[in-house]
Amino acid sequence: MAEAISFMEPRADVLARRSTIVADLSDLLAPECLIHEARELVPFETDAFVSYRRVPLAVALPRTTAEVAAVMKYCHRYGIPIVPRGAGTSLSGGAIPQEDAVVLGLSKMNRILDIDYANRTATVQAGVTNLNVSESVSADGFFYAPDPSSQLACTIGGNIGMNSGGAHCLKYGVTTNNLLGVKLVLTDGTIIDLGGKALDSAGYDLLGLVCGSEGQLGIVTEATVRLIAKPEGARPVLFGFDTSEEAGACVADVIAAGIIPVAIEFMDKPAIEICEAFAKAGYPLDVGALLIVEVEGSEAEMDDMLASIVEIARSHSVKTVRECQSATEAALIWKGRKSAFGATGRIADYICMDGTVPLSQLSYVLKKTAEIVHGYGLRVANVFHAGDGNMHPLILFNANDPEDAAKAEAAGNDILRLCVDAGGCLTGEHGVGIEKRDLMRHQYAKVDLDQMMAVRAAFDPGWILNPSKVFPLDGRDAA
Amino acid sequence: MAEAISFMEPRADVLARRSTIVADLSDLLAPECLIHEARELVPFETDAFVSYRRVPLAVALPRTTAEVAAVMKYCHRYGIPIVPRGAGTSLSGGAIPQEDAVVLGLSKMNRILDIDYANRTATVQAGVTNLNVSESVSADGFFYAPDPSSQLACTIGGNIGMNSGGAHCLKYGVTTNNLLGVKLVLTDGTIIDLGGKALDSAGYDLLGLVCGSEGQLGIVTEATVRLIAKPEGARPVLFGFDTSEEAGACVADVIAAGIIPVAIEFMDKPAIEICEAFAKAGYPLDVGALLIVEVEGSEAEMDDMLASIVEIARSHSVKTVRECQSATEAALIWKGRKSAFGATGRIADYICMDGTVPLSQLSYVLKKTAEIVHGYGLRVANVFHAGDGNMHPLILFNANDPEDAAKAEAAGNDILRLCVDAGGCLTGEHGVGIEKRDLMRHQYAKVDLDQMMAVRAAFDPGWILNPSKVFPLDGRDAA
Repeated sequence: MAEAISFMEPRADVLARRSTIVADLSDLLAPECLIHEARELVPFETDAFVSYRRVPLAVALPRTTAEVAAVMKYCHRYGIPIVPRGAGTSLSGGAIPQEDAVVLGLSKMNRILDIDYANRTATVQAGVTNLNVSESVSADGFFYAPDPSSQLACTIGGNIGMNSGGAHCLKYGVTTNNLLGVKLVLTDGTIIDLGGKALDSAGYDLLGLVCGSEGQLGIVTEATVRLIAKPEGARPVLFGFDTSEEAGACVADVIAAGIIPVAIEFMDKPAIEICEAFAKAGYPLDVGALLIVEVEGSEAEMDDMLASIVEIARSHSVKTVRECQSATEAALIWKGRKSAFGATGRIADYICMDGTVPLSQLSYVLKKTAEIVHGYGLRVANVFHAGDGNMHPLILFNANDPEDAAKAEAAGNDILRLCVDAGGCLTGEHGVGIEKRDLMRHQYAKVDLDQMMAVRAAFDPGWILNPSKVFPLDGRDAA
Repeated sequence: MAEAISFMEPRADVLARRSTIVADLSDLLAPECLIHEARELVPFETDAFVSYRRVPLAVALPRTTAEVAAVMKYCHRYGIPIVPRGAGTSLSGGAIPQEDAVVLGLSKMNRILDIDYANRTATVQAGVTNLNVSESVSADGFFYAPDPSSQLACTIGGNIGMNSGGAHCLKYGVTTNNLLGVKLVLTDGTIIDLGGKALDSAGYDLLGLVCGSEGQLGIVTEATVRLIAKPEGARPVLFGFDTSEEAGACVADVIAAGIIPVAIEFMDKPAIEICEAFAKAGYPLDVGALLIVEVEGSEAEMDDMLASIVEIARSHSVKTVRECQSATEAALIWKGRKSAFGATGRIADYICMDGTVPLSQLSYVLKKTAEIVHGYGLRVANVFHAGDGNMHPLILFNANDPEDAAKAEAAGNDILRLCVDAGGCLTGEHGVGIEKRDLMRHQYAKVDLDQMMAVRAAFDPGWILNPSKVFPLDGRDAA
């Protein structure tokens, strides 16, 4: 791989004290909760943004908030970097460690603590998987709305760190819109509770600030999330168009008309072919772009909303409109969409950008994205949350060819700059991580970044929490 | 009035320089944008929390963001406190000035800058009234969702400062859920842009942090808000119960069932009588408590949702169910509700608490609230956003009797403690302001408040922005 992204120099003093640090940590954690053998550390060297790898100094897997606090208090005292980790599914490198860091993994904190239907809330430990929350309440007719494609593996703690989204967030919002409270361990080991089961809290919205802060303000050990009642019915409908531009314009018009389906997912021709070959979802192969629009509610309500959407689609020369006829067919349609990344990974290496743009810019950005990637001699597949303007171009390349990899990274950066220049932003749901750290200057002025870093310093003045992420490595002195 | 809430001592050095400060400000602002004559300052001495009054040093009414920045840069340099002000409708004293402060009023910044239906956004100056936003897009079938009872007067800037809500926020969320971006002037006059028209932004959610920060982190001069399409139809329905406990339990069961109407408003017997006498809304007078439940959507959808709600209401021995028969009747029903505070003000002085509780605690808290107020020998009327658990007990008293006033304040404090102890919080939508400042210790531990103040210090290290509010006056050294 091209090493286009520079890493912080590991601190020699910390590396030199490795055996002492491991011994000290072993006083705080049971043997099965501390990993320090070189061979056993390897699985923690990267995350789903596999382009970069660093083997950490040690991995702590505490079982309780008190153990998390003890580890943090210790690391804080000795200035040892901490890299928090949920399931390691970050697509932006948010969980990639550094050699002088203790990885603080939440995987052993995986209990559901409280289901409260009267208040429509669930309180869970940070290591509970996203899907597990929904499954725990499914039989009673409820679900947890944010649904990243990695929901089988990814954790609520990781979702909070990245403010994760998913296909169904068009109607229900992303993590921050479904989060009511957290237990947060501050950098010095102090434990605070933010938010709760009630509507709002007096004072500053530190809960909202922590959501999406990529583990830099503290470590979330428990979360209270909103439960939503399952709709009476739900129906995904396929809309095929000749071109991506027409499909994009259709999405913009649907949203501009004030219609909010549960989901509007977009696939271009390469994405349709990749997903259909993998999942046999029954996608039409004779179209240039496909929208999966999901409506929900009563039969009458779904019919009403669909009629309005079909009318708009017709004005954009829709070629195919296909309602699914059964629950099995609906599940297949979603399986195809949700396996897009995995299916792509079978045919090529890829990186996935997640720039987000105002909907009025969707067609323009799709067209320019293709030009950019083809200009580097690479291929691109687009499969994304169109209703939110949250693009996911998958740039295909050969990871064994460093030149190809460098081209892919360069194309990705060009696309993100394009999104920002079109009035959008670098990330809709994957976070900044390491991947987009150096592009933050393209989206933000120095005063903006300085203000964010000043806020960070109010939580972590020693800059020990996930230190390589979010902000460019140089220019941090201002904070 | 009893002066139970202590104010900061005005700084003698600032008061001594009054004439110099006025002269300096007059270099920055046109004559009609600077008020400094004693007589003309009086209208700015308080806000809708009229219990306390302080005449400010001067009032600046800038017309542009650049003028706001110039005033702030000047005040920052000389350490002069700034108290931001929208329309002065704060119910928690958020806009009450102090003698050594420059009031920074946004009333002259009242232009709508951009209506963008393609992206469903409106960008407005901070002094635009809440209702004006909705009215500007109404003919095209859109509206801005948060609807405080003061929406005719209150400004978007003030709404952002207090994270204001309203009756229709049960479905659509409060200000923070409908805010996409702001232009913010920092304490030293630096101008930054947070958020924008696209879904999300990379980095920390400073936008969410600023929303509800009561003017302490910077001054918002422009805001981009979400526009929502008007529903096909909307129908308020009256549900009358014998007791408040039954009505409260019905609300809890509706929400627990996962049903989300647009609004569930609650009125107890005193509130019904007060509002009916004023608005002739046609409320039933033979019930002990009334719910106004608004459903919206297509006729079929409204029928469906209503049927489910009626079934739940029957299980709580509902006495009266009355659907309104016309748009006129619907408007009257809402007029009655929205004029509740004004109507109450005609028969007595009152203070209104806005503690918020988990819905499962609604009946209990209503019962205890009555016990508390009656224990002080006072009367209470309850009219509030029940679906959100956002209570609004109006404590009636005689403001000309200092003893009565002190009792009302004491009862209010007892009620807010009750809300916190029931798992709720001090404020759902009115903010902390001066009113609940000293109760913050009841909701938060010292470490929680210290962390908020550390964040505050990252924006305003000199503590010049709205300094008397939100945090108890003592114990600020930690920040």
